[in-house]
Amino acid sequence: MSAPGRPKREEDPMEAPAAPLVPVLAVVGIGLIGGSFAAALRRAGQVGRVLGVGRRKASLDRALALGLIDEAVDYAEAARRADLILLATPVGAMRGALEALRAGLRPQALVTDAGSTKSDVVAIARAALGDRLHQFLPGHPIAGSEMTGPEAADPELYRGRKVVLTPLEETPTRARDWLTRIWEACGARVLLMDAERHDRVLASISHVPHFLAAAYMAQVSREADADLRLSLAGTGFRDFTRIAAGSAEVWRDIFLSNRAAVLDELDAFSQVLAELRRTLENDPDPRALETFLEQAALARRLWDGRSAMT
Amino acid sequence: MSAPGRPKREEDPMEAPAAPLVPVLAVVGIGLIGGSFAAALRRAGQVGRVLGVGRRKASLDRALALGLIDEAVDYAEAARRADLILLATPVGAMRGALEALRAGLRPQALVTDAGSTKSDVVAIARAALGDRLHQFLPGHPIAGSEMTGPEAADPELYRGRKVVLTPLEETPTRARDWLTRIWEACGARVLLMDAERHDRVLASISHVPHFLAAAYMAQVSREADADLRLSLAGTGFRDFTRIAAGSAEVWRDIFLSNRAAVLDELDAFSQVLAELRRTLENDPDPRALETFLEQAALARRLWDGRSAMT
Repeated sequence: MSAPGRPKREEDPMEAPAAPLVPVLAVVGIGLIGGSFAAALRRAGQVGRVLGVGRRKASLDRALALGLIDEAVDYAEAARRADLILLATPVGAMRGALEALRAGLRPQALVTDAGSTKSDVVAIARAALGDRLHQFLPGHPIAGSEMTGPEAADPELYRGRKVVLTPLEETPTRARDWLTRIWEACGARVLLMDAERHDRVLASISHVPHFLAAAYMAQVSREADADLRLSLAGTGFRDFTRIAAGSAEVWRDIFLSNRAAVLDELDAFSQVLAELRRTLENDPDPRALETFLEQAALARRLWDGRSAMT
Repeated sequence: MSAPGRPKREEDPMEAPAAPLVPVLAVVGIGLIGGSFAAALRRAGQVGRVLGVGRRKASLDRALALGLIDEAVDYAEAARRADLILLATPVGAMRGALEALRAGLRPQALVTDAGSTKSDVVAIARAALGDRLHQFLPGHPIAGSEMTGPEAADPELYRGRKVVLTPLEETPTRARDWLTRIWEACGARVLLMDAERHDRVLASISHVPHFLAAAYMAQVSREADADLRLSLAGTGFRDFTRIAAGSAEVWRDIFLSNRAAVLDELDAFSQVLAELRRTLENDPDPRALETFLEQAALARRLWDGRSAMT
């Protein structure tokens, strides 16, 4: 069994330097994330043929009609033909997908994913792939939109966005480099870190805000005068709570799968909230209050400036 | 002394039904809020002459050059000539302004304000105006922007926005009706409630989100790997923290002046946060977690739909 990485297709002796990075791509789950990946590689001229795998025939038909995939296939055929397989499914569906792919997987093939949490995906892959674990390289494209389904696929979705890859000890360097080049061909910037670090960082900058926004939205909406409150809510409220409108099912899974890191970060937040609260209660300290708010405002403005440059 | 309300100007016997609602307006503080009020009334043809009062000559000169005001005057002249005086200053400057206006105030004149908190403004007015208290009607236009200064003034700022008036027991009905028509001429929708209710509602839908966003932003920015975290922060983070970039001085004053209501609402939030947290810690309850998130998501989507219709 050869290590995965940029595939050498013995059946194609004419392969030239201009050959696409991914001769055959299989995407499991052709929605926003998977469809956009296929579309971006197609636009970049870096994919030969795109196979689609999915549970729902209607979605596959739409993906075919939209030109996102060339063929709808089953797991066995995807395993047999693909050089790269992207799992763009909920984390809950990944174990079944990996088990269905495992037996037939080409030795040169690489499997990756697009899940929002990584430690749990690594554990799933370890259990499902066994001695094929070196053929799995977890990833997380930090991009998205409120839309779903093949119609939402956008070849520009990943342009300028970050993609985190969390290589395992088993991951060959050339698999890592190859997948990096593939994401870069989609316009993304790739960062490498271990899965635990990824999950802590995402708990902090994505999951905790969602948790707080949901708790806040629930509190306001349960008050006896909720209608009056909501009728006066303005643009600050709108932006602060926007994320709370996200899919309850998706976020339930994210919180459960990243539970330890989310709870840790909530603790850290609660300590700082208590510190801010102390400047206001009992014996208010206007100076400490202003200093705290000024630090937060500066940090936010600095981030804005930095993110505007990228 | 006649009660304030729509002025009858004895010196102008030719006043016709088409006369402007506000023959002479004085605005103390010609920035975004005050300048936009003058500009909106001017565009509606509902103001005769606009007097500007301010501490900084440069701002007054710019307001004159922009045509927001017709004359820069001092407090004594504003008191002597204006039918309506809008205090568009920080709450901290209101006591001085009211004391400077009090002695010379025309008996028919009405004074209003645009402060974000109302109980404290009522207390200030009570102390500063004494037997002229019936000439003061507190208000809060719920509109704003990140911009400041006369250049930010926009005649459309109040269109479709809510303005809360908190009449006192001393406020004559016709003063309340007159000021309602004036704000409606600016395109706003007027709501009447008492000052305490206003402050509780605003604590809930404006001040608490700011408090939480500031605490959250401070927590993230203090972590040892803050740079890595912030480099991966996306659009959810951006919207959730946007308000934390606001002026520390302005928000310090808001939190201090609405302290009791903010602390009460923070307590209510913390209870609901603890409830959500319990679904995740120790013995996670996926069903309760999803139900909670679904309630929050539905409340947020409903609000979106409702606010889109207004």
